[in-house]
Amino acid sequence: MGINSLDSDTSGASEQPGQANPFAPSEVLAALSLRCVECTTLYPGFEAMPRYRCECGGVLDVETPFQLPAARRASPAVVVSGRESDVIPLAGAAWRQLFDERACTPPIWSLSPVTLLPDRSGVWRYRELILPVPETAIVSRPEGNTGLYPVGLENCDESRVGHRQIGMFAGIERLFLKHEGENPTGSFKDRGMTVGVTMARLRGARAVACASTGNTSASLASYAAQAGMQGIVFLPAGQIAGGKLAQSLAYGATTVQIKGDFDAAMQLVEQVCNEMGIYLLNSLNPFRVEGQKAIGLEILQQLDWQAPDWLVLPAGNLGNTSAIGKAFRQAHQLGLINHLPRIASIQAAGANPFYRSFQQQFARRERVHAQTVASAIKIGDPVSYARARRVIEESNGLVEEVTDEEILVAKTVIDRSGLGCEPASAAALAGVKKLAARGIIRRDERVVAVLTGHLLKDSSTGIPQSVSEQAIEPTLDAVKRALKL
Amino acid sequence: MGINSLDSDTSGASEQPGQANPFAPSEVLAALSLRCVECTTLYPGFEAMPRYRCECGGVLDVETPFQLPAARRASPAVVVSGRESDVIPLAGAAWRQLFDERACTPPIWSLSPVTLLPDRSGVWRYRELILPVPETAIVSRPEGNTGLYPVGLENCDESRVGHRQIGMFAGIERLFLKHEGENPTGSFKDRGMTVGVTMARLRGARAVACASTGNTSASLASYAAQAGMQGIVFLPAGQIAGGKLAQSLAYGATTVQIKGDFDAAMQLVEQVCNEMGIYLLNSLNPFRVEGQKAIGLEILQQLDWQAPDWLVLPAGNLGNTSAIGKAFRQAHQLGLINHLPRIASIQAAGANPFYRSFQQQFARRERVHAQTVASAIKIGDPVSYARARRVIEESNGLVEEVTDEEILVAKTVIDRSGLGCEPASAAALAGVKKLAARGIIRRDERVVAVLTGHLLKDSSTGIPQSVSEQAIEPTLDAVKRALKL
Repeated sequence: MGINSLDSDTSGASEQPGQANPFAPSEVLAALSLRCVECTTLYPGFEAMPRYRCECGGVLDVETPFQLPAARRASPAVVVSGRESDVIPLAGAAWRQLFDERACTPPIWSLSPVTLLPDRSGVWRYRELILPVPETAIVSRPEGNTGLYPVGLENCDESRVGHRQIGMFAGIERLFLKHEGENPTGSFKDRGMTVGVTMARLRGARAVACASTGNTSASLASYAAQAGMQGIVFLPAGQIAGGKLAQSLAYGATTVQIKGDFDAAMQLVEQVCNEMGIYLLNSLNPFRVEGQKAIGLEILQQLDWQAPDWLVLPAGNLGNTSAIGKAFRQAHQLGLINHLPRIASIQAAGANPFYRSFQQQFARRERVHAQTVASAIKIGDPVSYARARRVIEESNGLVEEVTDEEILVAKTVIDRSGLGCEPASAAALAGVKKLAARGIIRRDERVVAVLTGHLLKDSSTGIPQSVSEQAIEPTLDAVKRALKL
Repeated sequence: MGINSLDSDTSGASEQPGQANPFAPSEVLAALSLRCVECTTLYPGFEAMPRYRCECGGVLDVETPFQLPAARRASPAVVVSGRESDVIPLAGAAWRQLFDERACTPPIWSLSPVTLLPDRSGVWRYRELILPVPETAIVSRPEGNTGLYPVGLENCDESRVGHRQIGMFAGIERLFLKHEGENPTGSFKDRGMTVGVTMARLRGARAVACASTGNTSASLASYAAQAGMQGIVFLPAGQIAGGKLAQSLAYGATTVQIKGDFDAAMQLVEQVCNEMGIYLLNSLNPFRVEGQKAIGLEILQQLDWQAPDWLVLPAGNLGNTSAIGKAFRQAHQLGLINHLPRIASIQAAGANPFYRSFQQQFARRERVHAQTVASAIKIGDPVSYARARRVIEESNGLVEEVTDEEILVAKTVIDRSGLGCEPASAAALAGVKKLAARGIIRRDERVVAVLTGHLLKDSSTGIPQSVSEQAIEPTLDAVKRALKL
């Protein structure tokens, strides 16, 4: 545990491809590719040294060959490549049946995890579309299976009358909130991290690292600990939010403070990982995006494969926009759904580079100095810009901005409904309201908004902090007066 | 929302039995009974005014008639009463089949919640054994379906090698942790609260109240908000832990500070609820205990109905000891399982009245001035003493105490495994270790320990609070030195 596992490593390299690795890359893994989203250069998905960037500096996108399990394949076997150019649209029925059967796995935890656990995960249930790895290699909590709450004016029954306040606020009849705060560490990051740490294990990595002060570091720390790896978190000195770190520290991640700002820490962690054989699990890592695709796939399954009209989500580093958009695109190609939802990415007005680019038809990639109360989307130069731009363009989507005030009002509505969320999540609802008011989202369209984190992730921002200063006498009359009865 | 709903209520009574209530008590509800655990007096389960205590002052225990759904009943129909004296042991196969089929409900959220939602809840899936109410009355998030993590030396596979540190610490081969922190508001309280708020709705209550500064108030606030009721939380003035209240305040509960200590607030809330027609959802409420039974039922189902040898849990107000013990007893009576697990209740040494009573064969009910870092079990005079005493006696169980130091050491082990928990939860693991070391729990016995709350519930106690004071230069050499590479 902790740093001790490195002390005994005299070579200084925690990833040791030369040593016996029980998970030699399978044929399927060998068929993975990484494509540069800038210059389209293609690389093998599994090289001796992990690759996080194209030679041109562009970020990479995983291309997965999709293959039904042998027993379910029509004969002759049909393999559908993930490459857009040569996809053969298949009837999605076989895929839907596969995923639906897996979702009905008995809730038994005492049997072999090898056979049952991947099906119970809201990520690995879709493993043929996420990362086709040997099931014994999977590091899963499990994660996912988060609620898709009906909160619209029409789709919310009497037992959720409080939730309906959200639909009333937004002015939407059939609105759903997908609550990713119900993942094990309290945010959607667990979906990408289970895939990222599984990939680290496949590579024989003994340490994984990221530069982050928020949800990513918490998730990394938890999954690394489960897998027996050292988790390393790089922090910009003096910009550490104490409470946000509690999870990473509790889960035992090694914490390194770097003189400089967040960008400096980001650059350094990339350099350190490359030179020291530590596996990098920043959002740069293309396999994390594959795991986050499962948010989109699970939404579709929870809607019985009836794609919504709109998917609205908070947008910072643009990993979720990229991942959910990619999931919808692939689901459409495979025939799992019959139309593509429109994707609306909502940025905070003080951290709106993607919105600025969208305003000029993506003529220019913008960068800003980010400032917003929604810390999880306080990002001025989003890593997944190119991936997300494609998603907006091909889904006939859009990018909107909302002010901090609008975010906090929306958060109060979500909190007071009894659902609750962290501040950045509320940007999605603020965006739905704004787009509905402007007639862009129609009142009768089916809309899913994504909440990315649990209320407990940030117990100060946008929450009433003080209770009445006046303590009352312990008498019934005093209570009646206090309750205005 | 909030207090406004009361402003318009000129009668001053928020529960109005005279008004039209869509949920008139069904035949089954009318068959419920409440029995005093002290003097065994029997009351109807559903009177015009809710009853929380026996005339003798004793707490009440729900007696439920158990009845399989009509389609599954053997002919002639067999009704098994929950009253101990006249239970007919039935083959449990029909019950197991019912619950297993419900657990395999498709994960679809777009259809009518009336038919699908109760099956998806880890409480209402067992509704015939919990509270037989009309399904349309149920107020559910849904809750439950929490993980049962294999963490023992033998039952933990390579993908959970970090979790196995817990088994190593405890010295147990087949150890499971049931993580109730994975409930919607982050604690096991949601299981009792979904039943309590459902009962409030059946009664037509418009407000619900409790005296609590912790997990109960968070859960009450969330479920009351969902159901459109006013949540009221009574607090002892000056004893408010700010962070712990964030959830209740965010979910919009009305907060009343009372001059006096926690016991004064407890007494007042009971008086206020009785006189003002507010439904009381303290642990005094017998229906909350029924909901918490689902922790035990879900553990049994997750173990494929193979009862464990031991169930070990943190013990404060003794609601969980009572509830899980009752669930096991009833499951045994119905033939769902073939033996009763032994129950070990673990108290903090500074809040150990139940342990003190156990030491003298329960000759005397003890009360103490509670003092422990594990705030969720910091209780000197547990409400459910009599219920829990019966559980310990009939399960051949025991009560143990652990020091705050032992609790914090166990918490660090759980946190560093990547699972994490709030401090009180760790008392269970500390207890397993102590009982294993003394040979009372054998190394090869099958043991389930209950974690009651999420790590995020308390982000300060027992977590390293500071990172290295020394920020380093952003260079590879400096990082290598910092990581001791």
